[in-house]
Amino acid sequence: MTVTCKRIQISTNGQGDTINVTPDIAREVNNSGISNGSVTVFIPGSTAGITTIEFEPGLMIDMKDMWDRIIPSNIDYEHNKAWGDGNGHSHIRASLQGPSITIPFINKRLTLGTWQQIIIVDFDVRPRSREVILQIMGE
Amino acid sequence: MTVTCKRIQISTNGQGDTINVTPDIAREVNNSGISNGSVTVFIPGSTAGITTIEFEPGLMIDMKDMWDRIIPSNIDYEHNKAWGDGNGHSHIRASLQGPSITIPFINKRLTLGTWQQIIIVDFDVRPRSREVILQIMGE
Amino acid sequence: MTVTCKRIQISTNGQGDTINVTPDIAREVNNSGISNGSVTVFIPGSTAGITTIEFEPGLMIDMKDMWDRIIPSNIDYEHNKAWGDGNGHSHIRASLQGPSITIPFINKRLTLGTWQQIIIVDFDVRPRSREVILQIMGE
Repeated sequence: MTVTCKRIQISTNGQGDTINVTPDIAREVNNSGISNGSVTVFIPGSTAGITTIEFEPGLMIDMKDMWDRIIPSNIDYEHNKAWGDGNGHSHIRASLQGPSITIPFINKRLTLGTWQQIIIVDFDVRPRSREVILQIMGE
Repeated sequence: MTVTCKRIQISTNGQGDTINVTPDIAREVNNSGISNGSVTVFIPGSTAGITTIEFEPGLMIDMKDMWDRIIPSNIDYEHNKAWGDGNGHSHIRASLQGPSITIPFINKRLTLGTWQQIIIVDFDVRPRSREVILQIMGE
Repeated sequence: MTVTCKRIQISTNGQGDTINVTPDIAREVNNSGISNGSVTVFIPGSTAGITTIEFEPGLMIDMKDMWDRIIPSNIDYEHNKAWGDGNGHSHIRASLQGPSITIPFINKRLTLGTWQQIIIVDFDVRPRSREVILQIMGE
């Protein structure tokens, strides 16, 4: 059993922008020297989240519509009153979505479904540069 | 430290059907030869999710009601316009719920609460056969 | 590679009370003797969840407002009709939030963002004593 850590750099447009990090993760797993195990994908920061989805343009719009419906940007947030950065909704969305997922891999291949990609969702109100942490464990 | 991978086959009715996979996972952990560690439960595919809940009939209805309220099936989805398969809401629900959880176990016993079961939720609009991936790590 | 398990005891006020467990987790990781790996944080029970957030008072109010909006306490729940404990909404909130997250650490330091803390959210309708499980794996 070994463990190895990798970092991926991404740039986002914020405002719910989604980045497909599947190819990066698949490459790092393939190059890790570990055949069977799990990769934990973690996004540092309190205004971005991570999940899986079929990465096609229609669903990216549908996902933004969902967030606008359940955690709107145009209602009052106590966070905004105190900090004035206007991203109260970004924090609450990120917190509900969650910062980590763990994906098993077998013979160096992620066990994702055919139409399932790993995405970072940046909920912040401005473009951001972010680092994604990959912790690959196995043997 | 060792790692072992198991697969569970399930059949679902779709439409938010929930499958209690706790007995299968407890059995695989018990038979793994690993005493202390964690099991990652991962569902491949982009229209199903995984979580824990008290698995009793009332809450299964309450959970469906919640999904119908926050991510309704009967509104417009860009995904449906492009693909015509009518499961836009299934994708968005799965993405918000998430595809993985990780549960520690001690002396071969999952650290679940007494009233806490592990469920797969199939959000797709038709019955499906699915495979659940278990990655068991520890020593 | 080794694995070690720790437990943290917390007391909550219920009703969406949030407990910042970051200092406890950072201390246990630092004392574990493991330099690089991941910690899985798991909350047993079916009426509490775990996530990360910027732990400041405004956002704690905003998060409660979000839950009251999308999973209200004052609507009918089948769970309440059967069990009479009035915490149907607590179960559904916990299930949507999820019971586990996994956080990588490098050189004994969690890879959290500067403004990102790990919280337990207790959705139950009364004060509770709870145990949080930490599974620390690495080398």
